[in-house]
Amino acid sequence: MPRLVLYNIGLLATPLGTAPKKGIHQKEISCVKNAWILIEDGRIVQTGTGEPPKADESMDVKGRLVTPGLVDAHTHLVFGGWRQHEMKMKLDGVPYLEILKAGGGILSTVRSTVHSSKEELKEKAAKALREMLGYGTTTAEAKSGYGLCPEEEYKQLEVVRELAKEQPVDLVSTFLGAHALPERYKENREEFVREVAEKMIPYIAENKLAEFCDVFCEKGVFTAEESRVILEAGQKYGLASKIHADEIEAIGGSVLAGEIGAVSAEHLIVCDEAGMNSMAKGGTIACLLPATSFYLGAKFAPAREMIKKGIPVALASDFNPGSCPCLNMQFVMNLGCLKYKMTPEEVLNAVTLNAAAAIHRADVTGTLEPGKYADILIWDAYDLNYIFYRLGSNLLAKVLKKGKVVIDYEKTC
Amino acid sequence: MPRLVLYNIGLLATPLGTAPKKGIHQKEISCVKNAWILIEDGRIVQTGTGEPPKADESMDVKGRLVTPGLVDAHTHLVFGGWRQHEMKMKLDGVPYLEILKAGGGILSTVRSTVHSSKEELKEKAAKALREMLGYGTTTAEAKSGYGLCPEEEYKQLEVVRELAKEQPVDLVSTFLGAHALPERYKENREEFVREVAEKMIPYIAENKLAEFCDVFCEKGVFTAEESRVILEAGQKYGLASKIHADEIEAIGGSVLAGEIGAVSAEHLIVCDEAGMNSMAKGGTIACLLPATSFYLGAKFAPAREMIKKGIPVALASDFNPGSCPCLNMQFVMNLGCLKYKMTPEEVLNAVTLNAAAAIHRADVTGTLEPGKYADILIWDAYDLNYIFYRLGSNLLAKVLKKGKVVIDYEKTC
Repeated sequence: MPRLVLYNIGLLATPLGTAPKKGIHQKEISCVKNAWILIEDGRIVQTGTGEPPKADESMDVKGRLVTPGLVDAHTHLVFGGWRQHEMKMKLDGVPYLEILKAGGGILSTVRSTVHSSKEELKEKAAKALREMLGYGTTTAEAKSGYGLCPEEEYKQLEVVRELAKEQPVDLVSTFLGAHALPERYKENREEFVREVAEKMIPYIAENKLAEFCDVFCEKGVFTAEESRVILEAGQKYGLASKIHADEIEAIGGSVLAGEIGAVSAEHLIVCDEAGMNSMAKGGTIACLLPATSFYLGAKFAPAREMIKKGIPVALASDFNPGSCPCLNMQFVMNLGCLKYKMTPEEVLNAVTLNAAAAIHRADVTGTLEPGKYADILIWDAYDLNYIFYRLGSNLLAKVLKKGKVVIDYEKTC
Repeated sequence: MPRLVLYNIGLLATPLGTAPKKGIHQKEISCVKNAWILIEDGRIVQTGTGEPPKADESMDVKGRLVTPGLVDAHTHLVFGGWRQHEMKMKLDGVPYLEILKAGGGILSTVRSTVHSSKEELKEKAAKALREMLGYGTTTAEAKSGYGLCPEEEYKQLEVVRELAKEQPVDLVSTFLGAHALPERYKENREEFVREVAEKMIPYIAENKLAEFCDVFCEKGVFTAEESRVILEAGQKYGLASKIHADEIEAIGGSVLAGEIGAVSAEHLIVCDEAGMNSMAKGGTIACLLPATSFYLGAKFAPAREMIKKGIPVALASDFNPGSCPCLNMQFVMNLGCLKYKMTPEEVLNAVTLNAAAAIHRADVTGTLEPGKYADILIWDAYDLNYIFYRLGSNLLAKVLKKGKVVIDYEKTC
């Protein structure tokens, strides 16, 4: 296979290893000047400084900053429609429950998703993935959850599986059948939980449609006990656990996350002491979604306290058509500094290594080290602080996925 | 001259006229379906619906949304250096005055600007202008203010004058000699005010280096009385007035703005009843800078109250290396809805017609009407709400400046 060397890297900034960084270690980043990276067969063979080795091809990075590709560990990638028509209601202060009653909110997206063909969903998600890649996301998680019945949930996950083969962003699937309680089960909650746990999960596991199982544990959605039933069923069938927890009220989701060894818990805006202690003990990664807090005008999760407690923090976009129509991880990185008061080094860890660990991909991506995929960002920047300090502009020069240039903003027509 | 027709415009959304919109009229936007625009010699000749007229060239807009190019009415375009090294201090909660004492803050930018050659400043600003154009800004204001002595202020304004000739974004110059009090005048404020009013302003007017005169009226910077002296000197020499007012404390800047008939007052975060009444009476445009509030974690200006009071509202970026290293007007538009609770129509007015009026360019841009420049955005969108609802992605398909395609995101290499 031809070997490619990236040389004249002004600053190579990357976390190291495959384990998510905890506590104060989240500040640790390897920063090497005048570096090079040798790539073969889509993977990093070697990194070093000074005189670069000979290779079949070489790329001059011109003294700029290089980091690992970004990992977006929480997205609702596949959905029908958008919800821009709800904007005016929201501006007028109409409460979400009213919008829901008027047929809007998540039910509107479920309707649009159900009414979309697989091809339509695929085309729409593929466009979103191109945008994501353009802002530096080289690996992303994708959840189902807008079907709320077996065939429709499977359809969404099949779309992810097909997209994974057809475009460059690596995808990791999560089954979120318990995203909302369908209307038809309003008087019969247990039956829906049973359907998710005993029908959908076995089918999804058998057909390898997802690696993770997630549930929306929130007041008015699913209780901690219902969440436990679903997530433990997932574990029984080999699906690792994630949980939407403590977004509006802390009803036990984060405590449960630690108890059952969930890989990650999401949102955590109102996560309390008990939840943090449980997550720290259980080794659960806090997957925080600052763009959603921003978009909703809500509070921001207590990221600094979590770091202090020894919890590994990841940041993700939460891209979805309701509460966060934003897929730009560079903006998420800004929010990490501006709103969570995390340092640039902590945020870089949170959107690369810790995010990769949150979706079981830290063995292949999230750092720039021999053996890992050559998922590499070349920034139009010369130091690490700059990319966190600037706001609103896409600061990338090139994106490499598995050693191939997939985005090149320097190419002129 | 060859005539170009843009046809198959799904929705042509534009304010109309040359006067800034006031009060509830800020909601008024002309929305025409299935439209066309005929262009000749860089200007719009005619617009209409249905069958487009014949022309030498034609462009299929493919059913998408078209709006006027964005006008950024408040930028500090020309400066040396960036200030990413201050990020850690800010994250650690070091107060701005401490950073200033340590040689940081605005004085650090003044130093970098003074130490930059004209060529260096030009190259840096040209890059920023390319970014701005890429996000849809076709006309921008540019202030001096990082020189604080005659030659250096002139140097900044000369850079703007040269850039105006060399790249497509139309530029409007503002002299902001009174941006901060130079150290050397600390014990002799009146002398600096006199130097600005009696030496710099006459020179700038004579050499046509600026159209507007601005002053930073704030506690600890310049008083309302000092601001009056400077702005009235400007008026005497034909420089229309702008004023940075009520950003941190309402010390009379907005009241002064209305009294002297300032074209616009900027920031206005803590603008009070008296200030609003004066501005409404004097016909002063409120030029609000939401990205700065966001970046600093400060309050947002009372935009809704201003609209209710009959004040025309414009939104601008405030692009500068300290409090707002953001030049993306699409993000400013998001903030207009999310934080000011303005409607999409009000925000569109605020970043086109009202912004153009704030820099005396409403005769040539800010709306899509016969006689005005063909400064046109073709969006990757089909309705107006969508571009305010989505967040973080550049939603443009093409940018036309004076009838020429200057940005084309659809062109593949």
